Amino acid sequence: MKQFIVIGLGRFGSSVATTLAEKGHDVLAIDLEEEPVQEISNIVTHAVQADATDEDALKTLGVNNFDVAVVSIGDNVHSNVLAALILKELGVEYVVVKAQDNLHGKVLSKIGADKIVYPERDMGTRVAHNLVTSNVLDYIELAPDYSIIEILATNNLVGKTLQELELRSKFGVNVIAIKKGKEINVTPEADDKVESRDILVVMGEEERLDKLREY
Amino acid sequence: MKQFIVIGLGRFGSSVATTLAEKGHDVLAIDLEEEPVQEISNIVTHAVQADATDEDALKTLGVNNFDVAVVSIGDNVHSNVLAALILKELGVEYVVVKAQDNLHGKVLSKIGADKIVYPERDMGTRVAHNLVTSNVLDYIELAPDYSIIEILATNNLVGKTLQELELRSKFGVNVIAIKKGKEINVTPEADDKVESRDILVVMGEEERLDKLREY
Ligand SMILES: Nc1ncnc2c1ncn2[C@@H]1O[C@H](COP(=O)(O)OP(=O)(O)OP(=O)(O)O)[C@@H](O)[C@H]1O
Ligand SMILES: Nc1ncnc2c1ncn2[C@@H]1O[C@H](COP(=O)(O)OP(=O)(O)OP(=O)(O)O)[C@@H](O)[C@H]1O
Ligand SMILES: [Ca+2]
Ligand SMILES: [Ca+2]
Ligand SMILES: [Ca+2]
Ligand SMILES: [Ca+2]
Repeated sequence: MKQFIVIGLGRFGSSVATTLAEKGHDVLAIDLEEEPVQEISNIVTHAVQADATDEDALKTLGVNNFDVAVVSIGDNVHSNVLAALILKELGVEYVVVKAQDNLHGKVLSKIGADKIVYPERDMGTRVAHNLVTSNVLDYIELAPDYSIIEILATNNLVGKTLQELELRSKFGVNVIAIKKGKEINVTPEADDKVESRDILVVMGEEERLDKLREY
Repeated sequence: MKQFIVIGLGRFGSSVATTLAEKGHDVLAIDLEEEPVQEISNIVTHAVQADATDEDALKTLGVNNFDVAVVSIGDNVHSNVLAALILKELGVEYVVVKAQDNLHGKVLSKIGADKIVYPERDMGTRVAHNLVTSNVLDYIELAPDYSIIEILATNNLVGKTLQELELRSKFGVNVIAIKKGKEINVTPEADDKVESRDILVVMGEEERLDKLREY
């Protein structure tokens, strides 16, 4: 079982720490302020108030014994970079850092951060995609031009089987699941009929999905 | 074409505004501070420095003519709620608000927000899931208990065709795509062979995916 450190218990960091703890992992959670430390103390293995830019403090906490660290100090970019640097120097093998923007990301990769994430930016893109067409309920990018969308069954689709709809040959997209209320059918077959209020989970090239959206 | 307002140009809000503008939509971007307004002014249709808790200011900007508003004022929860309330009262049909936590979300739904999003929390969960097993590269929740994971082809999988692997009958999961470097095969077939370094995109019940991870 891997051991995790999470530094910076804002909304993102505390969600990472809580999820890891709920999955049964050992988590050491660190924040400069008392309140976030208090709030998470019953959820994670250890919660400590400390300054992550203080090398001695991190040493004393034995961070070198941990496999993975997630650094998510937000507004103070300098502290974020410094904390990541110290963790790498103390020998933490895999350091994930939340970046503010591309420039910040570049600095982080130069100092040896192993993975850089942009939660706000990525979710912003996702929410924007979800907004632009009303029948698209969710959007997930799979590869640069390939996505999965969730689309509400429109009149053109309702009452027909997947075979009759021929979405694969007409649009070049795949229906990978059908949601019916709280049920989800993840093995949709040719003779499954689309009913009103169904949500189709469809995967394909972005251009082709755009065509389907307008159908 | 719908018209969008984005209020609060932090990392999340500016990503929403930029994505909408890039997709060709009309966007009015608003922030209290000058700098984020300047930064986005060449990207969106209009960028204005204004206080979104000032009803008269929003009226003057004609916000009632817009179809969708995204409110993403972060740390000042009170301003966030107030801005959302004013937008609903001025007649904006669909108001999406970024919430701080569940309590904040409850207040927002009481005052009539149409959709509440938790970008930091959701990405925190996603990043945590991605971290817990080294061969799982990405994780997307599709429905409670159903997910899509991206899994690096392990020795047990390499060199076999999908038919030989029998993942559907053995694990009850579906391979919906195979990534090979920059290529992605979204119509994987029975005789497709898994090669070293391939990434399988697999959909299924969470428990079953966990079994596959350990395979
Ligand atoms: N030197 C430090 N050592 C440890 N924790 C720190 C340090 N500096 C800041 N933090 C903590 O990091 C946390 C996240 O910082 P901040 O709120 O600026 O980021 P954010 O990006 O707005 O967070 P989120 O969007 O995830 O809520 C805060 O709880 C803050 O107390
Ligand atoms: N009353 C207001 N009217 C308009 N904009 C505002 C108002 N109050 C704050 N803002 C702006 O909202 C933006 C986002 O706020 P803040 O940085 O607190 O949120 P955040 O959640 O940390 O953002 P993110 O995580 O998306 O970067 C800031 O640019 C801020 O200037
Ligand atoms: Ca914070
Ligand atoms: Ca901020
Ligand atoms: Ca903050
Ligand atoms: Ca944030």
